[in-house]
Amino acid sequence: MTLEKHVSLNINVRGLGESPTLAIDERIKLLQSQGKKIYNFGLGQSPFPVPLPVVEALRLHAHEKDYLPVKGLFALKEAVAGFHQQKDLVDANADCVLVGPGSKELMFLLQLVFYGEIIVPTPCWVSYVPQAQILGKRVSLLHTSFEDKWHINADRLSQLLEREQDMYRPRLLVLNYPGNPDGLTYTANELKEIAKVARDYEIILLSDEIYGQIHHKGGHVSVARYYPEGTIISSGLSKWCGAGGWRLGTFTFPKSLDWLMEAMASVASETYTSVSAPIQYAAVEAFRGSMAIERYLWHARRILSTLGQKCYRLLADAGVKIHSPEGAFYMFPDLSPFADELKGRGIRSSTQLCERLLKETGIATLPGRAFERPAEELTARISYINFAGAKSLAASETIAMHHELPEEFIRAHCEETIEGIQTLVGWLTD
Amino acid sequence: MTLEKHVSLNINVRGLGESPTLAIDERIKLLQSQGKKIYNFGLGQSPFPVPLPVVEALRLHAHEKDYLPVKGLFALKEAVAGFHQQKDLVDANADCVLVGPGSKELMFLLQLVFYGEIIVPTPCWVSYVPQAQILGKRVSLLHTSFEDKWHINADRLSQLLEREQDMYRPRLLVLNYPGNPDGLTYTANELKEIAKVARDYEIILLSDEIYGQIHHKGGHVSVARYYPEGTIISSGLSKWCGAGGWRLGTFTFPKSLDWLMEAMASVASETYTSVSAPIQYAAVEAFRGSMAIERYLWHARRILSTLGQKCYRLLADAGVKIHSPEGAFYMFPDLSPFADELKGRGIRSSTQLCERLLKETGIATLPGRAFERPAEELTARISYINFAGAKSLAASETIAMHHELPEEFIRAHCEETIEGIQTLVGWLTD
Repeated sequence: MTLEKHVSLNINVRGLGESPTLAIDERIKLLQSQGKKIYNFGLGQSPFPVPLPVVEALRLHAHEKDYLPVKGLFALKEAVAGFHQQKDLVDANADCVLVGPGSKELMFLLQLVFYGEIIVPTPCWVSYVPQAQILGKRVSLLHTSFEDKWHINADRLSQLLEREQDMYRPRLLVLNYPGNPDGLTYTANELKEIAKVARDYEIILLSDEIYGQIHHKGGHVSVARYYPEGTIISSGLSKWCGAGGWRLGTFTFPKSLDWLMEAMASVASETYTSVSAPIQYAAVEAFRGSMAIERYLWHARRILSTLGQKCYRLLADAGVKIHSPEGAFYMFPDLSPFADELKGRGIRSSTQLCERLLKETGIATLPGRAFERPAEELTARISYINFAGAKSLAASETIAMHHELPEEFIRAHCEETIEGIQTLVGWLTD
Repeated sequence: MTLEKHVSLNINVRGLGESPTLAIDERIKLLQSQGKKIYNFGLGQSPFPVPLPVVEALRLHAHEKDYLPVKGLFALKEAVAGFHQQKDLVDANADCVLVGPGSKELMFLLQLVFYGEIIVPTPCWVSYVPQAQILGKRVSLLHTSFEDKWHINADRLSQLLEREQDMYRPRLLVLNYPGNPDGLTYTANELKEIAKVARDYEIILLSDEIYGQIHHKGGHVSVARYYPEGTIISSGLSKWCGAGGWRLGTFTFPKSLDWLMEAMASVASETYTSVSAPIQYAAVEAFRGSMAIERYLWHARRILSTLGQKCYRLLADAGVKIHSPEGAFYMFPDLSPFADELKGRGIRSSTQLCERLLKETGIATLPGRAFERPAEELTARISYINFAGAKSLAASETIAMHHELPEEFIRAHCEETIEGIQTLVGWLTD
């Protein structure tokens, strides 16, 4: 029997490897099991527990066994539409919601069914390009810069489109804000201007707002307010609800794009079928919201904001190019001010940077390259999530809402995070 | 704004529609909500509840929020390997198990990554061909016949391969037993002979054994016993564990096919990421098994066997071509003995047959065509699942294990099923 020798694989998937965010997690666990001290800035997972009423809802619905409709439980689609109506002031409709096992899977289905150009500004989330590769497609990358806060703007976009031979080629532009890996977001005015260009050129927007509810000031604004007819809002339980491992994401479509939703649902019916029933019932509780969930979010934001600012200060003071965090739990420092010293140590790419950092200090980060930045750019993503989420939430509850979290709070509850940043600074400036 | 007019879809997914098994379910619910009396023989869902210890395990693990490894929780992979070792007497290894959100999704990933011919005997499960269509591929269908119990045999397979120009072209053959839609299975001898041919031609087998544990006599045998190095066993919670809506399937590979597993895991990491964490923890309980679960299975089998035999008798006595059920909860009657009468009523295809049956009697079935049978063949799948699973299990527990279930049991607990079959017979012989 020589089946081993018959490796016969779709050429698009050969050498694909595992998604970098998941691979770093498995690598960290291996190093830790070998007794190595690791500062885990690698994983993009919320440090906070799933809010108790949502966990209780899962317990209550644990016996639900029926296959649910492909697009999702109707009560959940209503809750998701209500969530976007209330939080984002958009005219969402339950019939235009698609529930999937993670927004990553939904993005894959979108890439599969949409026949047109997909434009992704970089730095971008790690999976867009590999998904396209699996499908034998190509996404168009649009590199942004540190100076532009790693975001595109309306001028840049319209210049690009004016130069096109086929101005109305079917196009889909991905926006992600608050952003992974940058932790930054757009202002309402910036979104208004982008919306205008998108409307002029009839570009579909995929607005990935999975971090919307952890905008540090609770001030998230959706581009769907300014371009409702052309915007798909992506959301899910993974980030604001701390339930990454539960695997539930949502796309909310305008009526005008229901053809995309229907095609995605057809493919869903031949692949994952529907999202796990007990999880969907529990998600109704999460998307309907409650005072308990709002309080949870408020404290999560206060902690992330305080900790993010503290980390930012430490890095900025050390001379790192970095922006003040606005949302999520990421920073995307640019270490080019240290390029000469790093070159002297044999470090000329983001991959080398992260490898050496991990080896020499135990600090786990993801290289800018994983986010489609040029290989030689000395950028990396820091997830400031290595602290005890449940404990820090409980502690924050004891501090009056009109107070800021004191210096001692961060020292007491996020010591490891601060120590990791200080170790990074020490390694850089050594 | 004219985005509606810009429908721009991958040509492979245009007109795809929804999977027939899911579509019939949504249609039945609509008809029922309109007050129409429906005999639901359409859905392929276990009538039984999820065993209580498994539901309890989900409650216990409801708070689990972390992303789990792409291939699955290690404890679950161990439990799945143990399950196949113990139940199927095969040398399964935890490192060669892949957990996915349903075996349908895993089958899709397999079709995506495998570069070779996929051979599917018909009647076959409804999703193989649409999955290939989505991927722009083609599966090779191998039609079987009523006389062959809707199964292939070793002679037929080797004749086919002898005629091939390229005998060692990479090939994967799908076997599904107990089978959907036929409810029949292979004997150990038949599997041995098929295994021999597969080994001779180095064909990979995907052995879909999701109904293995509901072989009516508990006598399921896996082809992996006879061809371990070339067989992937597909299983999951959906059928024997009554948890279709939970979405958890498993593929168990031999070491020699780990290249397929690794490629599938890479694609998984860029799509669904991992299966819902609380569901995976609960599944450990299911696959580890216990006396409570064995008892559940024993009673489920006794009920399905008794009911299946009763339905079979009614149909056979009326002159329908049908085999005595051996597993699962399906029958695949051939109504060709009534072809002339049906033609007289304007029914010349399985689609017309099922449409008219639904309209005129409220009996919902799926046409043979959905299982890739020739359009004009008068076959249909009957799922005898429209009875109260929990109630009938409880009632069966009160009847000693050495007794057969009496006639009154079926009348008391599965009245609707019998009434549906009688209505079908009446409609046919009217």
